[in-house]
Amino acid sequence: MASGEMLGSIFNQNEYSTARMRAIWTDENRLAVICQTEIALAQAMADNHKIPQEAVTEIKEVMQPKNFDLRKLRLAVARNGHFLAGLIEYVQPLFQHEGGQYLHYGAASEDIEDTAYVLQLKQAHQLIVDYVQRICQRLSQLVAAHQQDLCAAIAHRTYGAYTTLGFKLGVFLNDLENLLTKLEQQAPQSFCGSLANGDGLSTMVGDHSDQVEADFCRYLNLNTPEMYWHTQRERFCDYTHFLTEIAQVLGRLAKELLYMSQTSVQEFSEPYAPGRQGSTVIPTSREPYMCESMLNLSTVIRNEMTLMYDQMLVSGEKDTAVWRDLYVAMPEICMYLSGQLNYALVLLTKGQFNIEKMRNNLQLDDGTMYSGALMVAMSSKIGRQKAHDLLYQMRVEADAQGKSLRVVIENSSRIGAVLSADELQAIMTPSVEHIPNALFKVQKILQLFKQHHPELQIKENK
Amino acid sequence: MASGEMLGSIFNQNEYSTARMRAIWTDENRLAVICQTEIALAQAMADNHKIPQEAVTEIKEVMQPKNFDLRKLRLAVARNGHFLAGLIEYVQPLFQHEGGQYLHYGAASEDIEDTAYVLQLKQAHQLIVDYVQRICQRLSQLVAAHQQDLCAAIAHRTYGAYTTLGFKLGVFLNDLENLLTKLEQQAPQSFCGSLANGDGLSTMVGDHSDQVEADFCRYLNLNTPEMYWHTQRERFCDYTHFLTEIAQVLGRLAKELLYMSQTSVQEFSEPYAPGRQGSTVIPTSREPYMCESMLNLSTVIRNEMTLMYDQMLVSGEKDTAVWRDLYVAMPEICMYLSGQLNYALVLLTKGQFNIEKMRNNLQLDDGTMYSGALMVAMSSKIGRQKAHDLLYQMRVEADAQGKSLRVVIENSSRIGAVLSADELQAIMTPSVEHIPNALFKVQKILQLFKQHHPELQIKENK
Amino acid sequence: MASGEMLGSIFNQNEYSTARMRAIWTDENRLAVICQTEIALAQAMADNHKIPQEAVTEIKEVMQPKNFDLRKLRLAVARNGHFLAGLIEYVQPLFQHEGGQYLHYGAASEDIEDTAYVLQLKQAHQLIVDYVQRICQRLSQLVAAHQQDLCAAIAHRTYGAYTTLGFKLGVFLNDLENLLTKLEQQAPQSFCGSLANGDGLSTMVGDHSDQVEADFCRYLNLNTPEMYWHTQRERFCDYTHFLTEIAQVLGRLAKELLYMSQTSVQEFSEPYAPGRQGSTVIPTSREPYMCESMLNLSTVIRNEMTLMYDQMLVSGEKDTAVWRDLYVAMPEICMYLSGQLNYALVLLTKGQFNIEKMRNNLQLDDGTMYSGALMVAMSSKIGRQKAHDLLYQMRVEADAQGKSLRVVIENSSRIGAVLSADELQAIMTPSVEHIPNALFKVQKILQLFKQHHPELQIKENK
Amino acid sequence: MASGEMLGSIFNQNEYSTARMRAIWTDENRLAVICQTEIALAQAMADNHKIPQEAVTEIKEVMQPKNFDLRKLRLAVARNGHFLAGLIEYVQPLFQHEGGQYLHYGAASEDIEDTAYVLQLKQAHQLIVDYVQRICQRLSQLVAAHQQDLCAAIAHRTYGAYTTLGFKLGVFLNDLENLLTKLEQQAPQSFCGSLANGDGLSTMVGDHSDQVEADFCRYLNLNTPEMYWHTQRERFCDYTHFLTEIAQVLGRLAKELLYMSQTSVQEFSEPYAPGRQGSTVIPTSREPYMCESMLNLSTVIRNEMTLMYDQMLVSGEKDTAVWRDLYVAMPEICMYLSGQLNYALVLLTKGQFNIEKMRNNLQLDDGTMYSGALMVAMSSKIGRQKAHDLLYQMRVEADAQGKSLRVVIENSSRIGAVLSADELQAIMTPSVEHIPNALFKVQKILQLFKQHHPELQIKENK
Repeated sequence: MASGEMLGSIFNQNEYSTARMRAIWTDENRLAVICQTEIALAQAMADNHKIPQEAVTEIKEVMQPKNFDLRKLRLAVARNGHFLAGLIEYVQPLFQHEGGQYLHYGAASEDIEDTAYVLQLKQAHQLIVDYVQRICQRLSQLVAAHQQDLCAAIAHRTYGAYTTLGFKLGVFLNDLENLLTKLEQQAPQSFCGSLANGDGLSTMVGDHSDQVEADFCRYLNLNTPEMYWHTQRERFCDYTHFLTEIAQVLGRLAKELLYMSQTSVQEFSEPYAPGRQGSTVIPTSREPYMCESMLNLSTVIRNEMTLMYDQMLVSGEKDTAVWRDLYVAMPEICMYLSGQLNYALVLLTKGQFNIEKMRNNLQLDDGTMYSGALMVAMSSKIGRQKAHDLLYQMRVEADAQGKSLRVVIENSSRIGAVLSADELQAIMTPSVEHIPNALFKVQKILQLFKQHHPELQIKENK
Repeated sequence: MASGEMLGSIFNQNEYSTARMRAIWTDENRLAVICQTEIALAQAMADNHKIPQEAVTEIKEVMQPKNFDLRKLRLAVARNGHFLAGLIEYVQPLFQHEGGQYLHYGAASEDIEDTAYVLQLKQAHQLIVDYVQRICQRLSQLVAAHQQDLCAAIAHRTYGAYTTLGFKLGVFLNDLENLLTKLEQQAPQSFCGSLANGDGLSTMVGDHSDQVEADFCRYLNLNTPEMYWHTQRERFCDYTHFLTEIAQVLGRLAKELLYMSQTSVQEFSEPYAPGRQGSTVIPTSREPYMCESMLNLSTVIRNEMTLMYDQMLVSGEKDTAVWRDLYVAMPEICMYLSGQLNYALVLLTKGQFNIEKMRNNLQLDDGTMYSGALMVAMSSKIGRQKAHDLLYQMRVEADAQGKSLRVVIENSSRIGAVLSADELQAIMTPSVEHIPNALFKVQKILQLFKQHHPELQIKENK
Repeated sequence: MASGEMLGSIFNQNEYSTARMRAIWTDENRLAVICQTEIALAQAMADNHKIPQEAVTEIKEVMQPKNFDLRKLRLAVARNGHFLAGLIEYVQPLFQHEGGQYLHYGAASEDIEDTAYVLQLKQAHQLIVDYVQRICQRLSQLVAAHQQDLCAAIAHRTYGAYTTLGFKLGVFLNDLENLLTKLEQQAPQSFCGSLANGDGLSTMVGDHSDQVEADFCRYLNLNTPEMYWHTQRERFCDYTHFLTEIAQVLGRLAKELLYMSQTSVQEFSEPYAPGRQGSTVIPTSREPYMCESMLNLSTVIRNEMTLMYDQMLVSGEKDTAVWRDLYVAMPEICMYLSGQLNYALVLLTKGQFNIEKMRNNLQLDDGTMYSGALMVAMSSKIGRQKAHDLLYQMRVEADAQGKSLRVVIENSSRIGAVLSADELQAIMTPSVEHIPNALFKVQKILQLFKQHHPELQIKENK
Repeated sequence: MASGEMLGSIFNQNEYSTARMRAIWTDENRLAVICQTEIALAQAMADNHKIPQEAVTEIKEVMQPKNFDLRKLRLAVARNGHFLAGLIEYVQPLFQHEGGQYLHYGAASEDIEDTAYVLQLKQAHQLIVDYVQRICQRLSQLVAAHQQDLCAAIAHRTYGAYTTLGFKLGVFLNDLENLLTKLEQQAPQSFCGSLANGDGLSTMVGDHSDQVEADFCRYLNLNTPEMYWHTQRERFCDYTHFLTEIAQVLGRLAKELLYMSQTSVQEFSEPYAPGRQGSTVIPTSREPYMCESMLNLSTVIRNEMTLMYDQMLVSGEKDTAVWRDLYVAMPEICMYLSGQLNYALVLLTKGQFNIEKMRNNLQLDDGTMYSGALMVAMSSKIGRQKAHDLLYQMRVEADAQGKSLRVVIENSSRIGAVLSADELQAIMTPSVEHIPNALFKVQKILQLFKQHHPELQIKENK
């Protein structure tokens, strides 16, 4: 029977995560990386003449999840009240020679537990990086394709100016590719093993413990830490911090798409596969559920970070009261983020931007969104503050007279004294030529992306 | 020099709180309630023959903030590293007789500190209740006034159906008046004094400690607790929980108003007093800043609740490590909420709903928002699921053909076989007569408000 | 394959929750309550002549989870991208007559989803109340048994005075029984069904919608709400708030037990069943893992409350972006709390308090913990502040001379001038007779428990 | 009148922050950096021939906070409902020539607001780095001084093994010096100006906007960003993330010191300046208030991070609803951290570690803490798992017989068959020689500190 929290529910889990990411955090994979870690330990101990090589051979044979009876293992773990103690006890009868006596030799539970979490996080890293890369590639296509397509820049829910869809999406591309870089820079810092025996003194390992730790890490393709880090939880906290930032950027993208999906805006349509329903009660609806879900996950992930900070407050050398915060939060952050990344990729790949509607919607503005450009144009002639005050006065008049701002501006003799009718008309007609920086910055964004991530460039951008 | 956090900044504090609420939490008022508490203690102790009545007389005279030199008091507090110890030391020379020796007699610091916080919270309660009452009254006017005014019901950012502004606002009225009731029910539970001496044994008070505590509370117009509550922090946590719920309801209202304020919607306009600016760069803008601020405060307040739960985890009998969470969070919740309540009252009183635009905006929908009603009408004839599937098919056709859903429905022979053209037309024309429950429920909401809060009814609703 | 978050992990889930509570939130039980809700709806609709009674009969037969092929249902849900739409589509072929056409007739998805959550929460309520009751009963036994057993009252991690274990535990009893009362008072407010069709206008239900809603709720043994509550999420938020407070009280208890479990204190021993291990590296350890886990869960639960407040910020009438906060947080709060309650009950039932060690540990104090009582004794003779200052001086002298405070006090002629050697000796010898309020308050706590919860009294306290 | 939140309260603010850090976030300094930013803008605009140089000269003269009447400025800000609009309006009459017309020329409010926040954060950075450096230096002295001083390693609140105080503190040194490095690496990324005009298109600046932005940043000693970052809030979020991690490490240190300060442990004494009081009710107490406050601030700071993530979710191009999260959280994080750093420095400099008590406290253990070393010693002879099980058996026997574990081990013939009495005695006698890694790792920690931060080395470590 599946458990009923959203990530465990067979009806819901795919709306919060992907199957591939969940697979990393299952009991099965946890067992697999634990076995891998115990084997690497045994090999490193044998290399340093601390246990016999034959023991390693047997440990490699026995410590395979496929050999385990999960039901019995579960009972052993429950009886021991301790996962690793239960596992070690359970596997003893599976050894025919002395290998069982050399299993876990030299390690404290935390060495194995923490190192195994690092391995799982590294597996998650690969999935996440792959997703972010694909999203960036897709964004770069969209940015290039839409660099001339005008749309409103939204200031405090109202039109503040106009911009291009290409630039709007470009800012997201730039944001995500920078976070991709940060993730890649953080990876080697975070992906270090640990063999310091919980209290940091490597007493179980004995002499040459640094060499054993280095060998242990090498066998796992992990980095060797400079110093005991078990009570220093930043490796986990930094990594999940950057994941959380990715989640927030995707949340911001979701807000943008949700805005565009409104009935009163209709600039974006979420993809609807055949058979997909929006509602039991509004049979014809095409609601932006994926966008809402993508926004939701930024909240759910951000909320887990509190636990990631809490887990740093270890009492003494070992402290389950805060370790468990990590056990809860870190896998969930990765799982929820996988779901969010998947939404982002699907939405950007299969969603439809309605370019014509975007352009038409610019007409909804009553003139306000040109007032910045008007101020600039007037500033060089009458000064910035005077231009500002004059335009402010137009708003006051428009409101007082119940007229459109555009009409008031066009009819104002005071404005007319500064700007000719042609100048006015030009400024108040949306055109990509009036915002040359939009094109320039889009090119720069694409260039920076190319420069930072040369490996991600695709042959032919549309 | 004012401190620079938002609540301390002279340029910003009024955008986060009101002056009257801040006044409750100032050092000056804190000193005043501390003095009041010490005086009540002295009186209660004297009544029970534990200290001489003359001491009380002198304590009443001396323990007045107006007598204190704040600079010197501050130095005494700093030297003592303890507020009450510093205060008691500082005031000793102000006593000419033996009163100083009977000051704080029988109390632990927590008795005074906690009871004083209860007194401040009770003062805050009055301001908050007054605001919520006025907001409810204003809402009840708006609800009555707009019960016939049609607008869209928003399902997942799209039009799901139509409703009335009166009912929409009525749900807020109902929500807030219920929270008002909860606040009033919580008040007597929360507003209890404490005189149990920190460890709960009232050792300092001595015999008849229950009677002394009861007298002490009575002098402060507080309730007497059934039992020692100093380490049971629910009194504070429950009260702020309800405040936080109010903040979330106001946040929800802010989201509604922000939606209505969009350039593409324009159903609500935030009030702009003469001279008020929206931007330095868009001189003509009328951005919904107050709505945004009102939404923001729901986040800021919700965030403080984490500290309110944290403060419950007292270690042993006294624990500054968590008490301080309360000192930080509780005053800030009250202050931020005052700012939010003020925004709500101003927006509901001076903001403008554009009824005509609301009605016109219903035309933005392509027919989707009638599909619920169409399904109901067809269900009785062909069954619910068949009606649902038929309408779903209309959406698929409309999308495939790039046509308006309305057109596809109107031209569908399969629909026509179930509903006559007149029936169809009637359903697809917004009218308050088609949603009789809207009127009925608005009346019920107003009736419930009247019934729950008879004292708040105003003679003549406009 | 089980999912890997802690609640889904077969190796870990029992350390975070109980099987019975998890069962309430499984997909299987969710399906069961959804079916139950759809049946109640059909019955209520038929009673009000809106659908034929034969349809109800068929719906009752078909809508049983045992009839469903979960794999196929899952696929239908995935294809629909909507749980209820998928369910309704999936079950259609299971109907042989017209029943399928009357399934979900009159409801919006939220009516069913929300009402089903209420039903699940009510099931959880029963488990929680049962646990809290048993914990209170056990506490009342311990309180009675240990009312004469002296131990330290801890002020800021140091001995502040002495008290009794009975009173210390009594404060927890009083706290939890009050929260039990609150939970029971909240239950009828929270356990209301909903049939207002998402936008609150009950359009799908049609006329007499109030009656249908009342019947619907009655069939489910739920209360009928006064008014549409779908966008008013306090029902869920209030209930989980009280659960979170229970979690914090248990966290506080955990802190107390963890303190007592220290090697340097040894006043409490967590139970260790045969075979249970504390460590793979310290084979003889008896670490307080359950206490740590119990503390941890207070953090994990408190953290979910942020989402419960976030879920109140519904945009418009329907908003998956925040509903999902509830779907994540509410089941998890209940599950985590079940685990925590279970720890509390086991620890209080099978853990050992070491009364003798408690008493002996009082000797660790150097005299500090008597200084409150000494001050009281001297206050009546020389005044409170003078007594305070004199004792403070003793501390300064003791520190300066590197002597024990007790020795300095005993040898001080200034103290001797106020208190005789016998008086001094009496005060500085721990005795339950010197803290008569401890006994008195324990009796009152037990009395209040009896009075508030007469049904929970057990015949013979051991 | 000071505001009453803790940071504003004259009685409390020094217990939550330092005066120097508060000074950075005052209205006065905010005004100063805003002026500095406007001046840099004017200079950059003039350099690029966009405004006349004479205007810059006048702007430099006028835009000095000392010229402003704060009361009038406050009124202007209040009337405008917008800080910058109010400031610009207010200063106009202070200009005698045309300078006022060129003030704020080319900028949007966000350019100035955000850049000014970067400047303030950079000022805060210097204070924070200075504190962390001094704490690291002090820790390095303590680490060197105490590398031979034995104390307990605490596993789950019990003795797990023994270690040295030097190593224990060394882990904190290593942790903090790594965070110092991260802070220094983050600084150039975070300390970038912004001149992209809110929508990113630099429309107000006009052509060559990149050059103007570069000049603007150069005048402020800030870095020039690669791309528009206004809606990308990671610069602030990353920086405060590392501050929060420092706060958590200090919180962990506080937990360690609080443990050591217990009456039952007494291994650390917080400094008490003459006149400092611990309590009004326990006149002789020496409670670890500073440690509690230091722990508390880690909670308060961690809690602000939620707002830092929330502020990333900008809607469209401008969104006060989330910007305000930053205005609240970022200054408070810096202020609270200053208080916490100050506590850490004082405690490490003036607090007393009681080395003798630490060593004596090792006797409180009943033998458990040697069981790891015993297992290692026996493992090479009988195998790890057999050694583990044998020792586990000793615990069971000791508990069953109510004997000390040490006695049971010493008398066990099964143990005796593996280890001689001398071997046993040696292992069960604490000695730094048995934990050679402790010395080795302390040396490595000091070496790494030297290597990473050569500038911080002090001539002569004691």
